Amino acid sequence: MDFIIYIPPIAGVVGLVTAYIMYRAMVRYPAAEGRPSEIAELIRAGAKAFMSRELQLIAASVAVIAVALLLSPLGAATTASFLVGAVASALAGFLGMMAATKANVRTTTAARDKGMNTALTVAFFGGSVMGLVLASLGLLGLGLLYVVFGTDPHTAEEIHGFAMGAGVVALFYRVGGGIFTKSADVGADLVGKVEAGIPEDDPRNPGVIADNVGDNVGDVAGMGSDIFESTNGATIATVALATVLVVEAGDAAGVNIGGSMVPAMSLMSLPLLLSSLGLLCSIAAIFAVKASAGRAPATALRIGTFAAAGGFVILSLFLMRWVGVGFGTWWAVLVGSVGGVIIGLSTEYYTGGKPVRHIARSGETGPATVIIAGLSVGMQSVVIPIFTIGAMIFVANLTSGLYGVGIAAVSMLATVAMTMAIDAYGPVADNAGGIAEMSAMGPETRVITDELDEVGNTTAAIGKGFAIGAAALAALTLINAYIAIVSERIDGFSLNISDPDVLIGMFIGGSLPFLVAAITMNAVGDAAFEMIEEIRRQFREIPGLLEGKAEPDAVRCVDIATKAAVKKMLLPAAIAVLSPVIVGFGFGAESLGGFLGGALLGAVLLALTMANAGGAWDNAKKYVEQGNHGGKGSEAHAANVVGDTVGDPLKDTSGPSMNILINVMAIVSLVIAPLLTS
Amino acid sequence: MDFIIYIPPIAGVVGLVTAYIMYRAMVRYPAAEGRPSEIAELIRAGAKAFMSRELQLIAASVAVIAVALLLSPLGAATTASFLVGAVASALAGFLGMMAATKANVRTTTAARDKGMNTALTVAFFGGSVMGLVLASLGLLGLGLLYVVFGTDPHTAEEIHGFAMGAGVVALFYRVGGGIFTKSADVGADLVGKVEAGIPEDDPRNPGVIADNVGDNVGDVAGMGSDIFESTNGATIATVALATVLVVEAGDAAGVNIGGSMVPAMSLMSLPLLLSSLGLLCSIAAIFAVKASAGRAPATALRIGTFAAAGGFVILSLFLMRWVGVGFGTWWAVLVGSVGGVIIGLSTEYYTGGKPVRHIARSGETGPATVIIAGLSVGMQSVVIPIFTIGAMIFVANLTSGLYGVGIAAVSMLATVAMTMAIDAYGPVADNAGGIAEMSAMGPETRVITDELDEVGNTTAAIGKGFAIGAAALAALTLINAYIAIVSERIDGFSLNISDPDVLIGMFIGGSLPFLVAAITMNAVGDAAFEMIEEIRRQFREIPGLLEGKAEPDAVRCVDIATKAAVKKMLLPAAIAVLSPVIVGFGFGAESLGGFLGGALLGAVLLALTMANAGGAWDNAKKYVEQGNHGGKGSEAHAANVVGDTVGDPLKDTSGPSMNILINVMAIVSLVIAPLLTS
Repeated sequence: MDFIIYIPPIAGVVGLVTAYIMYRAMVRYPAAEGRPSEIAELIRAGAKAFMSRELQLIAASVAVIAVALLLSPLGAATTASFLVGAVASALAGFLGMMAATKANVRTTTAARDKGMNTALTVAFFGGSVMGLVLASLGLLGLGLLYVVFGTDPHTAEEIHGFAMGAGVVALFYRVGGGIFTKSADVGADLVGKVEAGIPEDDPRNPGVIADNVGDNVGDVAGMGSDIFESTNGATIATVALATVLVVEAGDAAGVNIGGSMVPAMSLMSLPLLLSSLGLLCSIAAIFAVKASAGRAPATALRIGTFAAAGGFVILSLFLMRWVGVGFGTWWAVLVGSVGGVIIGLSTEYYTGGKPVRHIARSGETGPATVIIAGLSVGMQSVVIPIFTIGAMIFVANLTSGLYGVGIAAVSMLATVAMTMAIDAYGPVADNAGGIAEMSAMGPETRVITDELDEVGNTTAAIGKGFAIGAAALAALTLINAYIAIVSERIDGFSLNISDPDVLIGMFIGGSLPFLVAAITMNAVGDAAFEMIEEIRRQFREIPGLLEGKAEPDAVRCVDIATKAAVKKMLLPAAIAVLSPVIVGFGFGAESLGGFLGGALLGAVLLALTMANAGGAWDNAKKYVEQGNHGGKGSEAHAANVVGDTVGDPLKDTSGPSMNILINVMAIVSLVIAPLLTS
Repeated sequence: MDFIIYIPPIAGVVGLVTAYIMYRAMVRYPAAEGRPSEIAELIRAGAKAFMSRELQLIAASVAVIAVALLLSPLGAATTASFLVGAVASALAGFLGMMAATKANVRTTTAARDKGMNTALTVAFFGGSVMGLVLASLGLLGLGLLYVVFGTDPHTAEEIHGFAMGAGVVALFYRVGGGIFTKSADVGADLVGKVEAGIPEDDPRNPGVIADNVGDNVGDVAGMGSDIFESTNGATIATVALATVLVVEAGDAAGVNIGGSMVPAMSLMSLPLLLSSLGLLCSIAAIFAVKASAGRAPATALRIGTFAAAGGFVILSLFLMRWVGVGFGTWWAVLVGSVGGVIIGLSTEYYTGGKPVRHIARSGETGPATVIIAGLSVGMQSVVIPIFTIGAMIFVANLTSGLYGVGIAAVSMLATVAMTMAIDAYGPVADNAGGIAEMSAMGPETRVITDELDEVGNTTAAIGKGFAIGAAALAALTLINAYIAIVSERIDGFSLNISDPDVLIGMFIGGSLPFLVAAITMNAVGDAAFEMIEEIRRQFREIPGLLEGKAEPDAVRCVDIATKAAVKKMLLPAAIAVLSPVIVGFGFGAESLGGFLGGALLGAVLLALTMANAGGAWDNAKKYVEQGNHGGKGSEAHAANVVGDTVGDPLKDTSGPSMNILINVMAIVSLVIAPLLTS
């Protein structure tokens, strides 16, 4: 059965071809000439400009780390894996973003000329390029590395570098993109809506282009690279756990797991095979959605998601039987998939249900009560996901040990092409609305894009919950792999909480997510402050701007956001990459284990709190705008606008940074693990 | 040397006598007749009314728990200890509060008739009653229990009930008091200052009496019982750790700790002896401050604090030599005392330094940026305290093991009579200002009380940082004692993070502080909403109220806050008491261990974030009111008022609830530990 090692890269190629087909299908839709296309070009140029600045910084950082890896005992193979991972991640985010910046104006045009359904289809096609590319590039890159290096326990360790490369790039994409998008958004909103009294996305506002650029660099490229890292991190960590089991089993015919003797090759290949199956299920679902284009696509999207996940869960049973993995391990697949759905639904409730109406009502007594209510909703929202993750770990471990926990993580992320297709649809719809507003299309177009945007907000919130859950499980699997690899080498290695070394590590680890959240939040605040000064200056100094007779200097605003993001992303990145190295070499493998445990806990709790509070504030404002509690212009509305603005950096900058922070910490630890024990 | 067991209760009696002397000295100062005394009487009556309602609920809960304990295998001795602890805690908070409600109007009177120095002296005398009573009742109650039950390893376990009794009462005092005080404060502020445009503490505002009652029930009784629990929890846990060491050593002449053989009796008595020494040092410092009354008392206060701590550290060296404890353990005493100071100074910086000016400046771009900046400051502020706690654990463990970590906790809390004297001074000064405003004293009186209040705010912020640090170390020692007691009974008991049972416990434990924070925050929001409706109703329906021609119905507002607090404190209390029982008996001792670790981490991080963000917002508003960024009435001021209001429940309700939450969880676990292993 050694040929199964070729399945993942082949699936990757199939996925890339599909991505190209979707891309072609999307660009065949027309983009309205004149103003809409000009604006789209501005957005596209801004996104490219930011990306090229960001990629310079990434290239420099990647080069430094690569040299360090090369000089370390980890050597050339790990360095090569690292570089492949970095390039694949950078490429996935970049390609997805380029597709999104083509899809936005086509969505606007479709909304104007063809109506809601076609517009939604175009946006979905745009998003599906991102989903397919990231799933496929992972399978292709990682699959080829296993083909080249083989699955010998030693060489398998060298592949850990892939996830580290992906993680470092994702860190910059996610944190940098997050800072960019929210400094532009907060800055443009505060001056535009609050001071100048002009609507959102008004073409007179110099910050609006930057805001729309931000959707692409933050919510498409940032989110995509984040999920790319989670997916591949979970896969690599599960393979690492399998490797340890194989080594422990010695010359036995296989490894006893999930109630049956599993051949070594199957055990190590299963994570990638599951991802391959998930990609194929996603492709089928995407084509099914495409085929039904034009007929109630919102329903089609939802059915597509569940079909992809359901098909994956059922087919995985056959896949596992085929490669000789017992029924017990299938429970891990099941809980992984179901757990992801539960976390998504919990997010939907907290960012769309009764808690949102409670926040909206608090607006009647001013902004302070809106903030208190929203913080409370965010904190409350951690409970269901945490208990769900706990239950997933319990079931997966019961049926097939820590390897099963890894399989649950991989399964949750297996149909990532489909989930990300819907997720990346959100920013495309958001952009489409911006372009409609800026090119002064009629209210009937704007109504459609608003509706699209609303669907997008819900999917984005669910996607965020899903991303946090997936990142948590991926990080946990990485940590388990770290522990397994260290335990292989140190007899009696144990991360006992009552050991002060472990405990101190746990405390320090737990504090760093708070520090990084603070840094990124502050970065947004400071950059927004600069942005506000610039927008005020333009309103003051450019004659005729407010009257719509002159053009704003949008490039200048893009530039401010770019500079701020590039400057401020370095410190969080350094903390994520260096802190495990310092703790590991300075205080030992035990402290580093405790450190990762504390960091995971802190990161997950903060990520859920911030993402859900932000989502709830956003929708509370929208709820008031629908005419409740006095509607637009009322005191309650003003109060809820404050909540929405506070939520912006929480849900789109600091919160999402947590996922990648803990994953990078864990993957760096896994990579250096062999060195800590010598 | 068996007589040393009598030292703690004797020190307790000395402390109580001193408290009475201070009380007599305080009430000898005159209380202005007429309006000021009437208002003080209203506040006092409101506080008593709330307390009696709260005590009914406490009595019922304590009775239920006592019956459960009695019926459990823990038996009568543990139940008796539990009841003694509950009564001592209830009494300490109550007596301290009664003294504070006598001191407030005397402080106002002194401010009017004698000036700043005398006013500060009176307020300090009032606060010192609280500090002395809580330190003394702990030593008396706990000391007598050891005299009665003896220090045999088995009976020592029965004394754990004392801390549990203290914890349950503190839970109600802290959470209930916190909800009461902030629903009144937020409600009164929002309608009074924001809507009706009348100043803080204006007599026309029906919510103002409730606000002033809240200072006493929340910041005096709540804070006092919280610290009472930390102090006694740390002491009991350290004795428990000593017990385990003594049992392990068997018939040996002593236990090898800190580089010397320590007699069993000395090892077990040291925590209480250190607390006794700390109380005596505090008494000396209080008398020194009293003797220098009238001459620059602000400086005297600060010198008094450092003198008490410094004297304690030096004299403890002699104490330890006398009872035969080696020099090594003295390092634990030193780091405990120094660590407390560092955490206090860090709090002072984050709630008074550059970060505050940064928040204030953010007000220029509206309330949203104030909130973002404040949240960021709060999150950042966790780093120094966490690293300090880590360093304390490291040094204490290095020199004398986990027992040393307990000794560090005990030492940090040893001079609690002095620290609490200054801490309880804050709400007295706050009340004094309220009484001055409500009885329409001249601006020159108000200037003095404002200054007193400002000193009080800084001391309160430092006191909060100190309380969090102390609570964290106390909880940690309780957890270590729990682990030690379980390990004694289960061979190979280990809390390995990679054990899924431990990990799941850790996740669930970490989520509960977020849940309790959300519940308490929401409770304040909801109660404030009701309060606002009531105050608006009174302004609408009571003719002549706004013109100052009619009296508001203050009792009704006190009643609303009382009902809200009583209703909403039950759920957090149930979570704190029952969750360890459910996790322990449902999932086992390993899960409970992980649970406590996660809960401790989550609670400490949240407590620091919320307390410091709240303190920083408070002072940012004050900074603007001093004339910066446009001063009072400016847009920046309005924005910073929003920050201050958001910060209120964070710093005075949810944040402080974290301390007692984790301590109650830990003490309940310690009490049930013997049952989990049978």
